[in-house]
Formats: sequence, C-alpha cells, structure tokens
Amino acid sequence: MQRSKIKDIFNASQAGGDVLVQGWVKTRRSSKSVTFIQITDGSTLQDLQIVVDEANPGHDAASGLTTGCSVSVEGTLVESPGQGQKYEVQAKSLEVLGGSDPETYPLQKKRHSPEFLREIAHLRPRTNTFGAMARVRNSMAYAIHSFYQERGFQFIQTPIITASDAEGAGSMFQVTTLDMANPPKNGGQVDHDEDFFGKPAFLTVSGQLEAEIFALALSDVYTFGPTFRAENSNTSRHLAEFWMVEPEVAFCQLDGLAELAEDFLKHIAGHVLENCAEDMAFFNKWYDDSTIATLEGIANAQFERIAYTEAVDLLLSSGEKFEFPVAWGTDLQSEHERYLTEKKIQKPVIVTDYPKDIKAFYMRMNDDDQTVRAMDVLVPRIGEIIGGSQREERRDVLEGRMSEAGMSHD
Amino acid sequence: MQRSKIKDIFNASQAGGDVLVQGWVKTRRSSKSVTFIQITDGSTLQDLQIVVDEANPGHDAASGLTTGCSVSVEGTLVESPGQGQKYEVQAKSLEVLGGSDPETYPLQKKRHSPEFLREIAHLRPRTNTFGAMARVRNSMAYAIHSFYQERGFQFIQTPIITASDAEGAGSMFQVTTLDMANPPKNGGQVDHDEDFFGKPAFLTVSGQLEAEIFALALSDVYTFGPTFRAENSNTSRHLAEFWMVEPEVAFCQLDGLAELAEDFLKHIAGHVLENCAEDMAFFNKWYDDSTIATLEGIANAQFERIAYTEAVDLLLSSGEKFEFPVAWGTDLQSEHERYLTEKKIQKPVIVTDYPKDIKAFYMRMNDDDQTVRAMDVLVPRIGEIIGGSQREERRDVLEGRMSEAGMSHD
Repeated sequence: MQRSKIKDIFNASQAGGDVLVQGWVKTRRSSKSVTFIQITDGSTLQDLQIVVDEANPGHDAASGLTTGCSVSVEGTLVESPGQGQKYEVQAKSLEVLGGSDPETYPLQKKRHSPEFLREIAHLRPRTNTFGAMARVRNSMAYAIHSFYQERGFQFIQTPIITASDAEGAGSMFQVTTLDMANPPKNGGQVDHDEDFFGKPAFLTVSGQLEAEIFALALSDVYTFGPTFRAENSNTSRHLAEFWMVEPEVAFCQLDGLAELAEDFLKHIAGHVLENCAEDMAFFNKWYDDSTIATLEGIANAQFERIAYTEAVDLLLSSGEKFEFPVAWGTDLQSEHERYLTEKKIQKPVIVTDYPKDIKAFYMRMNDDDQTVRAMDVLVPRIGEIIGGSQREERRDVLEGRMSEAGMSHD
Repeated sequence: MQRSKIKDIFNASQAGGDVLVQGWVKTRRSSKSVTFIQITDGSTLQDLQIVVDEANPGHDAASGLTTGCSVSVEGTLVESPGQGQKYEVQAKSLEVLGGSDPETYPLQKKRHSPEFLREIAHLRPRTNTFGAMARVRNSMAYAIHSFYQERGFQFIQTPIITASDAEGAGSMFQVTTLDMANPPKNGGQVDHDEDFFGKPAFLTVSGQLEAEIFALALSDVYTFGPTFRAENSNTSRHLAEFWMVEPEVAFCQLDGLAELAEDFLKHIAGHVLENCAEDMAFFNKWYDDSTIATLEGIANAQFERIAYTEAVDLLLSSGEKFEFPVAWGTDLQSEHERYLTEKKIQKPVIVTDYPKDIKAFYMRMNDDDQTVRAMDVLVPRIGEIIGGSQREERRDVLEGRMSEAGMSHD
C-alpha cells in the first residue's frame, strides 16, 4: 500500500478506506483492552491517533511503545470521537521499525528549553517548535522563488568563494587549502600562489556584484543562497551564515523598487498565513501572541512611503526620549525605526532618499545634491527588513562620487 | 507605460496596441529613410526588431546606435513582414539610456570564444550562449523545487561552514579568521581556540548528515545549495564549488528511491524541453546536435534496472575492449557506464546492489552478505548522474560494519 502523509490524511474529504501511515511515536497510553498512540511524521504539526485493539496481534508491541519509536501502521481511517481531531486510524496491523530506550531517549512529553535542545541537535527537528520552524521556512523559501518566477526574474547562483569584497574589508572569512601551521611564505607574507586559487580567497558577503552583471543582460534577476559575515557580534541581528535574497532589476527606478519590495513582503506574509496556519498558530500561542497580527499587518497594509528628511522631522517633533539623538545626516537607529513604524505610522514604512554621506557611492544622486535614491523598508516589531537603491547611471556623476570617496576609477 | 518583456511580446496573441520595451542593442542597420534595431532584454533568446522611421524625432539617435547601447522604446506592436519573427515594433519614441563606444565595446556580431569571454566576465551574460545557460539553469532550478514541493518534501538549508567531513578527509577548504601569516600557536600547532568558531572549520562537501537528521523527523526533505571540493582536479566532472540536490527519505527502500530518481530526472528533462525550447534548440544547433535527443531519451524512456553483478556479466561478455579491466568487486569506470547505457541498453540504467567493499559502511547489507542496497543512475552521454542508497537500519549489522571499517561506535 502507498504511504499516506498525516497532513494528507487530515485533508481527506471523508473517513473510510484503508491507509498506511509511518512515523514516530509522540505518546502512548494503554488500557487493558486498547492502546492509543499519537504519531507524527513531520508533515504537519498535528499528531495522528492510532487505536490498537486488544484483539489485534500488534497490541502487545503497541503497548510497549515509548516516545521516539518508529512505527508502520495499516488501518482504517475513521472519524475521531475525541475532540480536536477529525480522524484517527483503527489499526489492522502494526510494525515497530525502530525502538527507543525510554531511559536514554531525551525527548519527552514536556517543553524542552532551546539550550537543552541545542545539545541534542540530531533530535530537535522532532520537537513541535523545530518542526514548525522547518515547515514555515520551507514554505517561505518556495514562496520567494514563486514570487520572482511569476514575474519573469531569473534565479542565478552567484559564487560563494570570492576574491571581491562587496561591503568593505574586515568582516570576511578566509578560505584556504594551505597548511595553516606552516604556510609557504614569500618575503614574510603568506604565499597564496600555492593556495588553491593562486590568490587569497574569501566567503562572499553578497552576490550583488554578480547579480548586477546578470541584470545588465537578463533585465531581472535574483539570488537566494547563503552569505557570510565574520563579525564577532552576538546579537539577534547578526549571523555568521545566513540565506539572503538579492533582486537586481534593470530599467527600474526607486519607485518601482519600492513597489517590488512591498509586493514581495505581502506575498511572503500572505503565503505563510495561508499555507502554514497551524504552525503560525503554534508560534502565536507559545512564543509571541503578536506573531500573526504582525504578519497580517504586512500582508494587508498599504505601506507608507516617506522621505528620510520627513522621517527625521517626525522623530524630532515626536516628544519621545531616544537613547541615540536624532539629527539630519545620521543613520536611523533601531529605536527610531521602530518608533516610526510601530508608534507613529503603525504599519510598514518605506523610508527613501537618505543623505548621500551615510549611503554607498553608487546610489543615484538626487537633484538636491544631498540625498540619494536609497530606501529601507521598516516593518513593525522587526525594523529594517529590506534595503535597496537605484544605481547612479550617469557616468560623470558616478566618477565624481568615486573621487569624493577616494576610490580609483580604473 | 508598463514595460513589456520581449518574451511576453512574442507570446502576445495579436499585434496592435502600444508597448514599452527596454533592452540592449544587438545590431543596427540604417538606410536614409529607416533604421532597424535588434534589441535583447535577456527574457528570451530572440531579439526584437525596432523600426524607426526617418520622420521620427528619435531617428537621429537611433541611426547612431551601436552594439551594447541600452534603449527605451515606445511604439506600436505590428506583424513583422520579415521571415523568422512574428512581431516587430514601429517606434513612436526612442530614448538612449546608455551609450557604448564601438572602439572599446568587446562584444560584436560574431562568435566569441569561451576563453575570450572569460576575460570579459562582466559582459558575457549578454551573449546568446550565456543568456541561454542562465535561462535553462533558472528553469531547471525552479523545476527541482517544484518537483519536491509537489511531493510534500521540505526544503532545508544545511550549513555551509562545518566541522564535519561527510566524505573522508583531504578534499575540504578550510575557513578561518586567523591571520594566516602569524596564527596563534599552542605547542607548535595552530591554536584554533582563537579562531572564529573556536575550532577548525571547513566548507561542507555534503548536506547529507544534516538532511538525514531532518528526514528522521519530517519524513521527506531535500537540500539544494552550494557544496565544495578542494580536489585540485581539472576535469569536466570536478568543480571546486557547485550546487547539488540531496533528497533524504524516511520509510523508503531502494525501489522507492530508484523510482524517485527516475521520476525526478524525467521531470527535469521534460520541464526543460517544454519551457526552454528555444534555448535548447540553440545548444542543439551550435554546440551538440544530440542535446535534445539526450534529454528526450531521459524524459520518455522507462529506465532499465539491473544489479551490479548483472552489469559486470554484460560487460565481461560484451566483446568490448576497455581501458580498465572489468572484474566483480571493482567500481565501474566511466567507459563501462557509458557502454551499458549508450551501447548495450541504449537508455537510462539504474545499477543496484554494489559490492559492499566499494560502498559506504552505512548502506543496507543484502542477505548475500556481499552486496549493499546502493544505486547509481546512469544516463547516455553523461554517465553517472545520481548516486544513492538505502541506509542500514539494523543496529547490530551497522555496528558490525563499523567495526570492519575500523570506526569507533561512540
């Protein structure tokens, strides 16, 4: 018989008929005449109840099952008399595929701390929390691809190992095949002629440079892959390794980019709310009861768009006491961003036209000669979630900006 | 006006109506009364012809256009009187967005060698070859995701930076933030306590170990991301960095795995033939006139399945002269694989049940105690394209195999 996933079983239009289900035991309780087993197969947050009657030859095995055992069950799909679940399976046969010693198996029917789960990384995907994270992450990743594919963007894979630094030196991991204890040297310096690529190599911090090249041939492209930062900064906003999305769009000005960013975030938030409702309800219940409201706010709001100068005015006239002072020309801090999006405007905000001196040299200069066509997308409870810019296409202006920044034109 | 991609223009159901197109000039030819421009925007292999009449104020600018210039054109979509293309655009206005100096712009209307294009990597995506590669690669990547998503697999992102070696030491890149010229030392060895992760770290060669862990909680998972090999081997089958797909399936035996592999390859080949017909026709014409036939052979054939022992018998009785001798117990060489799939069986072949001594210790032992439940998928003109195995689930057998291999059980 073809295996059914538990998710598909709960989506069945009616009970009746035989199914084969395979998964891992969450809990088991036995009476003399019947054993109830809750099993999960990771396809959904919901466990499926298996009922094994005393008369069933598998009852002895079933009554000895403990958390973590894996089983294969054939049985009849019946409506569940209990509350909270639609169907259960009346077992016809049960096979124990893998045992689990209750004395040593570390997951039990209780909440485990993230710190404890970190020590049993090989088992934590079996917990509700990590299962839900994996399913939501999967759903978002596919939604990211679908969003761009539907708009005719080409997904490109930019190099991970690179010799170029997109964001300024000092935060990159070096990659080498040399013996670090005794590297070949030349005049006191490590001789990278003998290294794998014949020169120093690093892990990429951004696919932007390669994506720009492809956008100047294919019009609309995006990357979605791992990037790396060697900053030794342990905050919730820093990771050494993380997956990032980078679209690059030719023939597009800042307004078009802001529209793309808004459409993108709404698509992702809406997709997760629709396709991961159970998992999101789990997070909303156990972790943060504003989770769903935050996503709904992104999916349903029309994003506000304000210029940086206007944002600074709002902050200065707010009467709020900020830790970092607000002044035109300085970057917005998290507390400023969160005031704007959570308190003042109370929905996602796209801040545009930042002072040129706090943004990259390649962003398009406005006619005021003071601000550039950059944008940051701020959303409630998260803060900055997307940054972007229209590039300077006027060669003379770009070369002027490079001279100001002390960069070579060659 | 909303920009139209050239691909969408050629897919329009009828001529008539105004369009805005933006792209890069491939060629331009002018007469006194009219200028014809071929432009590309990378959305399709086909160029779009723009016709600019003498009476149009943009005609002067148009008549000076050279290869590589970028333009924005508004005009009317009309049926093309010329052969080979359906529509062209009668320009109403034309704006030159970016110039291109014909003295220095290196791409011209001729074939450029791959070696030459390597030196202008920032421009090669504009060539037909690299554009087609990018579009086919994009299409295949999305087909890979769609295939697994439709089957309820979860996409997981496994770590790139890792301390574990899935394939045996010696072929990994090391990752460090230490000063390689003067690394801190302890007893003559590099002191990785001071390195970013507090111990030696490397680039992953496979996400298999992490994917197995997730499969044992979520049932069906796959990875699709970059992996790395530091083998200094310059062949068409070795890359330092490449994207790999790794599915891991719980509750699945070798037959199910072989079926998944066959379905997967057919899906990808069929998808590319259907969705990238123009680009594949380009490769078939200019690079290898068996390209499409090879993909059709994958998409339409029922894959043959034979055991390794049978494969060896076929090779021994073939009468072929091989460079490497054939003997039961040795691995199949490329020439052997290609004989089987191209000459003898003439379609894709899944070879199963390899001798245990040439496969990994964790593959499930057959009852003959000599072969294991491994498979390699061989396809004509490519050879081995997928390798996989059913894992040994019997703990005593697995520990026996580990002892044989001199591995610690802890």
